[in-house]
Amino acid sequence: MSPDAKPNLHLSKHRLEALVDGVFAIAMTILVLEVKVPDLEAPRSAAELGAKLAHDAPTIAAYFFSFGLLGIFWAWHHRLARLIASLDVPLVALSLFFLSLVSFFPFAAALVGRYLLNPASMAVYLPITGLILATQWLTLEMARRRGRLDPDVPASDILAARKRNGRGLAIFALATMPSALRFGWLPTLACLVFGILLLVWTRRVT
Amino acid sequence: MSPDAKPNLHLSKHRLEALVDGVFAIAMTILVLEVKVPDLEAPRSAAELGAKLAHDAPTIAAYFFSFGLLGIFWAWHHRLARLIASLDVPLVALSLFFLSLVSFFPFAAALVGRYLLNPASMAVYLPITGLILATQWLTLEMARRRGRLDPDVPASDILAARKRNGRGLAIFALATMPSALRFGWLPTLACLVFGILLLVWTRRVT
Amino acid sequence: MSPDAKPNLHLSKHRLEALVDGVFAIAMTILVLEVKVPDLEAPRSAAELGAKLAHDAPTIAAYFFSFGLLGIFWAWHHRLARLIASLDVPLVALSLFFLSLVSFFPFAAALVGRYLLNPASMAVYLPITGLILATQWLTLEMARRRGRLDPDVPASDILAARKRNGRGLAIFALATMPSALRFGWLPTLACLVFGILLLVWTRRVT
Amino acid sequence: MSPDAKPNLHLSKHRLEALVDGVFAIAMTILVLEVKVPDLEAPRSAAELGAKLAHDAPTIAAYFFSFGLLGIFWAWHHRLARLIASLDVPLVALSLFFLSLVSFFPFAAALVGRYLLNPASMAVYLPITGLILATQWLTLEMARRRGRLDPDVPASDILAARKRNGRGLAIFALATMPSALRFGWLPTLACLVFGILLLVWTRRVT
Repeated sequence: MSPDAKPNLHLSKHRLEALVDGVFAIAMTILVLEVKVPDLEAPRSAAELGAKLAHDAPTIAAYFFSFGLLGIFWAWHHRLARLIASLDVPLVALSLFFLSLVSFFPFAAALVGRYLLNPASMAVYLPITGLILATQWLTLEMARRRGRLDPDVPASDILAARKRNGRGLAIFALATMPSALRFGWLPTLACLVFGILLLVWTRRVT
Repeated sequence: MSPDAKPNLHLSKHRLEALVDGVFAIAMTILVLEVKVPDLEAPRSAAELGAKLAHDAPTIAAYFFSFGLLGIFWAWHHRLARLIASLDVPLVALSLFFLSLVSFFPFAAALVGRYLLNPASMAVYLPITGLILATQWLTLEMARRRGRLDPDVPASDILAARKRNGRGLAIFALATMPSALRFGWLPTLACLVFGILLLVWTRRVT
Repeated sequence: MSPDAKPNLHLSKHRLEALVDGVFAIAMTILVLEVKVPDLEAPRSAAELGAKLAHDAPTIAAYFFSFGLLGIFWAWHHRLARLIASLDVPLVALSLFFLSLVSFFPFAAALVGRYLLNPASMAVYLPITGLILATQWLTLEMARRRGRLDPDVPASDILAARKRNGRGLAIFALATMPSALRFGWLPTLACLVFGILLLVWTRRVT
Repeated sequence: MSPDAKPNLHLSKHRLEALVDGVFAIAMTILVLEVKVPDLEAPRSAAELGAKLAHDAPTIAAYFFSFGLLGIFWAWHHRLARLIASLDVPLVALSLFFLSLVSFFPFAAALVGRYLLNPASMAVYLPITGLILATQWLTLEMARRRGRLDPDVPASDILAARKRNGRGLAIFALATMPSALRFGWLPTLACLVFGILLLVWTRRVT
């Protein structure tokens, strides 16, 4: 059964990519709204403004870190999108879920920027990041099973991308373990098992 | 009379689609601004942050729900836009009205997220949603009457889209009835009559 | 001297149009941030929320009005952009000035939405609107004098656009007169003279 | 070794340009959020609103100045992007760093708009502006060394762009000296040396 013969959503990839670029651009730019201009008692005091900006340094560092992370997600997404030829309803739904996580990311980043040492902020940030990576992985697997991959892309590229997705998600799951420890043994174990299963999957996938 | 012979607005579909994608991307991303980072008395207390986030759970759920709804409207719009070949002044005006509703949607969503149990917030949210669906339905009907449909699209696709539009709007009108009940019999009856008329129209349209 | 022989900025029209669409989409969507979710004493009181929303009705009406105005500016801009083949430095600078006015428009709209009856808010809103129309008019005139018009566009289309621009700006200047009266005879007279000169120009231009 | 033979990121220039346009459009439009609608004691008093707006005049002037600066960065970026044929990982990373600075710019502009006479605000604004110019310069140099330039672009265009980049950065470094003086001799000397080195480089580059 050729891709042309399949029921088609008639929603062009090009439109989805424009929406993706728009949501990423806004999510990246909204991150900076968390960096607030401080109120000064002496408006011309360089010492006071300098001290307040130094106090905001973690927020500013968090801005650049989160921007970079969104940038990596964005580049990752477009490398995947290149492999996919057309979209059906489940793929569009998954892409919209992915975008809702991307658009939610500035909130999670703001939470961490303000309460860096509070474990609860990590309990929002890390699952959101993990879900973003997981939807990326799932998008490619679903597109493959649903026969939506671009036939012009060499099979070796597809395989490399699948392995990269799996490995990335596995590394994230394992790297999350120290943070998960704060929430008890169960989430830590879940990360470990999930990470190992993914590594095994990554090895076996052909 | 061929489409080429008609007075043309010379406003390319491509530009309108770019504006549509931009407005949707921003409206989707603005939704998250309603999810506020809570103020904590003990900044490192996971218990306090967890409790405050749990308290904000309806707002967060409303975010994902509204994002999904905007996503559906977006996909719906682009499936319709594919059927239309060119734009004239009334179609552009209708599209801009549609966009003004989409861009207003985050306010309606914020209202519901904050006052979920207040009937007045539904009295804003439901009509806005209904108007968004109605402008979609109207766009296709107007484009058809004004001879702006793409001649390359098979007539069966056009008919299916028209029926889908009508059915969607009818289901929305009928599903709104329980909420409308709170505002008295008149709005409830209006929803019922409107929904039935649309179902009849959907059946008869050929 | 052919357009090809001219020194070229090498900045494609396509990129400027993407920036224009982005700025318009954001300016349109930012308008809604002025419509604030009211604070309620009784969160479930439909009467209180209804009353507060009714009190915000002018702000909401101002939102739809300003959105429509930006929509008209957007459509107008793209009809003009179609006539222009390439861009040089002064045309890009003028376009950026135009965009800075468009992006400033939400502030002017917020001012009017909040202080509708305050003449000073009109003293911001009307000049900004006038400048937006004037930069549109100037863009076409400059592109024409600098030989940047698209040679494939029939001369009658160019002439019609120039007349439309002049007439639009003239009507705006004359329609502004009653508001200008509040600021004395001088601004009123300036609007009158400017409007008449433009009408004369519109008649004579060939 | 031809560009085709190189390991390719498979991230199209077109997608990066869309992200760039989006981030610029939002950063430009976010600038206006710093211009706040004033609170009035007498909502209908033109005198009070006029006085408050006059008081905000530096903020409004800063808005147009920063918008113009972002506009110049935007035009500059796209003139460079035209010279580059394809992207690899370091070039995408550099572009994302460039975008994170552009998106951070509204914060720096807000700081200056509010604390124009405070030297500490300049200690944020000027380095950010300098880094934006420096990443532009670095992008072209890196693209050249990594063999990513468009072979269809004449060598004289490349050379002119490199000289323009170097000269622009040098002029910025030298023009920053009076402001740097406030922070002691060391930063002033650094600007001088950096500016002169760049001018020498600009002369020698062939």
